[in-house]
Amino acid sequence: MKTIDWVDGAIELIDQTKLPGELVVNRVDNLDSLIYDIQRLAVRGAPALGVAGAMGVALLAAQFEDLDKVRSEAARLRAARPTAVNLSAMVDRVLPVIEQGPAAVLAEALAVRDEDIAACYSIGQYGADLVRGLVQRDKARIMTICNTGGLACVERGTALGVIQTIFEQGWLEEALPVETRPLLQGARLTAWELKQMGAPFRLMVDSAGPFVLAQGLADAVFIGADRIAANGDTANKVGSYSLALGAKRAGVPLCVVAPETTIDMNTATGSDIEIEDRGSEEVTTFQGVRSAPEGTATINPAFDVTPHDLITAIITDRRVIRPSAGEKLSEVPLGPTRAA
Amino acid sequence: MKTIDWVDGAIELIDQTKLPGELVVNRVDNLDSLIYDIQRLAVRGAPALGVAGAMGVALLAAQFEDLDKVRSEAARLRAARPTAVNLSAMVDRVLPVIEQGPAAVLAEALAVRDEDIAACYSIGQYGADLVRGLVQRDKARIMTICNTGGLACVERGTALGVIQTIFEQGWLEEALPVETRPLLQGARLTAWELKQMGAPFRLMVDSAGPFVLAQGLADAVFIGADRIAANGDTANKVGSYSLALGAKRAGVPLCVVAPETTIDMNTATGSDIEIEDRGSEEVTTFQGVRSAPEGTATINPAFDVTPHDLITAIITDRRVIRPSAGEKLSEVPLGPTRAA
Repeated sequence: MKTIDWVDGAIELIDQTKLPGELVVNRVDNLDSLIYDIQRLAVRGAPALGVAGAMGVALLAAQFEDLDKVRSEAARLRAARPTAVNLSAMVDRVLPVIEQGPAAVLAEALAVRDEDIAACYSIGQYGADLVRGLVQRDKARIMTICNTGGLACVERGTALGVIQTIFEQGWLEEALPVETRPLLQGARLTAWELKQMGAPFRLMVDSAGPFVLAQGLADAVFIGADRIAANGDTANKVGSYSLALGAKRAGVPLCVVAPETTIDMNTATGSDIEIEDRGSEEVTTFQGVRSAPEGTATINPAFDVTPHDLITAIITDRRVIRPSAGEKLSEVPLGPTRAA
Repeated sequence: MKTIDWVDGAIELIDQTKLPGELVVNRVDNLDSLIYDIQRLAVRGAPALGVAGAMGVALLAAQFEDLDKVRSEAARLRAARPTAVNLSAMVDRVLPVIEQGPAAVLAEALAVRDEDIAACYSIGQYGADLVRGLVQRDKARIMTICNTGGLACVERGTALGVIQTIFEQGWLEEALPVETRPLLQGARLTAWELKQMGAPFRLMVDSAGPFVLAQGLADAVFIGADRIAANGDTANKVGSYSLALGAKRAGVPLCVVAPETTIDMNTATGSDIEIEDRGSEEVTTFQGVRSAPEGTATINPAFDVTPHDLITAIITDRRVIRPSAGEKLSEVPLGPTRAA
C-alpha cells in the first residue's frame, strides 16, 4: 500500500490524522482539497510532500488548459507549508513540463513517486551499513522522532526505513520512538508502523529522550529532515535538536536520514530556514481535549534546527556525509542508488 | 488559599488532577485515601508532598493508639512515591513525636506547613536578587518546567515563586512554561497559576524549550527539584535535563530552586537517586484520549537527573550555591530566612 498515489485521475492518500485508530484513504481531485490535506497534516513528511507537490501539478494540468492559471494555482500549492524543501522543489520540477501537456506532467509526477520509492530502498542500505560500523553491540537500539516511515514517504521510509532495514536484517534490538508533541506522530504513526512490521519498540515522551540517552539505553539516534542547508544544518521536527544535544552529551551518534532532494544548497545555513509556527490550538489541546486554560498564548515552532556540529552523519540515497568530522555536502561525491 | 492544609481534624487538599477545568478540594481523613491521592498526583510537588507526609502522620496519630501500628502505617506512606526526598524526610521528622501524643504530632505537622510557607517567601527574595544580577536586560524572560508554584507547595512556590516575586517587583517580561508531558503540569497547573496572578506567559511543548533557548528568547531557566544530591546533581521532572542541555549550549543560566529540605546529603550523586517509572498509561494516552496503538510498551521515567556541572545556581530559602563554578553544598554556609 502506498501512502500517496495517483489512481484513476486523482490523488489518493492515507489520512494520517485518523491513525492509529482508522486507516482511511482520501481521494483528492482538486487543489483546494490537496492544500487543505497538506495544511492539516493528513499528508505530511518531507518526501510525501514532494510527491503531493508533483501530483498536485498533475491535477492542475489535467484541470486547466490555461497555463498561466496552472502556474498561479501551483504557486499556492508551493506555499502550503514553508519548511520542507521537497514540496516547493517538486512543484518547481514538474511545473515546466506543463508545456508538453497533461500526460507528460503526469509521467513526471509518477517519476517523482518512483524515485522516492527507489531512494528509500537505497537509504536503507546506506544507513544499515553505516550503523553496523557505528554500533559496538550485536544488536542495535535506535531512538527516533516523529514519523519518517512509509507514511512520510511513499512505500518505505527514511530514518524509520533504516530501522526497518536493520529489523529485516535481524539485528534490531529495539526502536525507541519519542511521541513527538504536539501532533504525536511518533506515538500515532511510528508506533503504528513498527507494530505493523512486528518490530520491538518502546515509546516515551519527548523530553525523556535525552535522559534515556544519558542512561546508555540507545546506540544511535536517527532523525529525518525537512530541509538540509548547504552547511549541513538540518531543520526537522521540533525536538530533534534536544535529542542531538542529548546524543552529543552521551557520546551517541546522531544521524540525519533523508533523500538527496531534501538537501537545499541554496540555503546557506540553518538560520536561513523559515520555521513554521503552527499556532496555539495544537499546543493547548490534543484531539479536541483541552490541556491549558482558555486564551493561553503559545510558541509553537513545528521544526527546529540542529547545527551541523551535532550531526555525526547525513545518510542519503546516494552517499554518507559526516558533518561533525568536517565533511562538507559540497565536497562528498554522489555514489550509486543501491537496490534492495 | 492553601494547596494542602489541616482543617477540623483532617487534611484538605486541592485535587490537582481536576485543574485547570475545576477547582475541587478533597477532604482526606484516612491513610489509604492520602496514599491514593499522592500516587495519582492529586497532591504533588516535593514541598507539598513533605507537608502531606507530615500531616499523614498526624492523621495516623489521631487514629491509632498503638504506636507500632502508627509506625508500620507510616512506612507505607513514606514509600508512596520514591523520588522526592521531602515525603520520606517529613514522615521521619514527625514520626518520633508520636511518643508525645497526637496534639504534639499535629503541632509538628503544622510547623512543617508553616516552615514551607516561610521558606517559599525567602526563596523568592534570594532568587529575584540572583536573577537581577544574571540578566542583562531590563525585564526578564524566564523558562520553567512542570509546576513549582503554590500548587507544589502550600502558598507560594519555588521556581515559579521566584517568577512570581519578579512579577510582583515589576520586571517580568514573560514566563515561558513548557507543557510537561506526560501529565501536563506546565500546561494545566503553571499556566493556570500564571493566569491567576495575571502574569504574561507563553506556553510551548517540552521539546520546543531547547530551540527557544537557542533562539535567544529566554534569559534564564528555573526548575524545581525533587531531590538534590550531595554533589549538586538534581532529580526533577523529566525534561529538566533537556532544558539544562539547551541552556548550556545557549549560554543561558539554569537555576535549581528548592527549599533546604530538598537537599539530601545522604545521597552522594544523581546516579544514587531512585527514578520512578510510572508505567505506560500516562504515555499512551493524553488527557484520557488514546494516542498510541493498544499494547504499546513504554519507558516512562517521571524524573531525570541534571548533572551539577550544568547547574548555574541552586537557590534555597537560606543560600545560593553555584555548582557549575565549583561551589559545594557542603561548604556554602546557610544564611538567614528572609522575610517577604
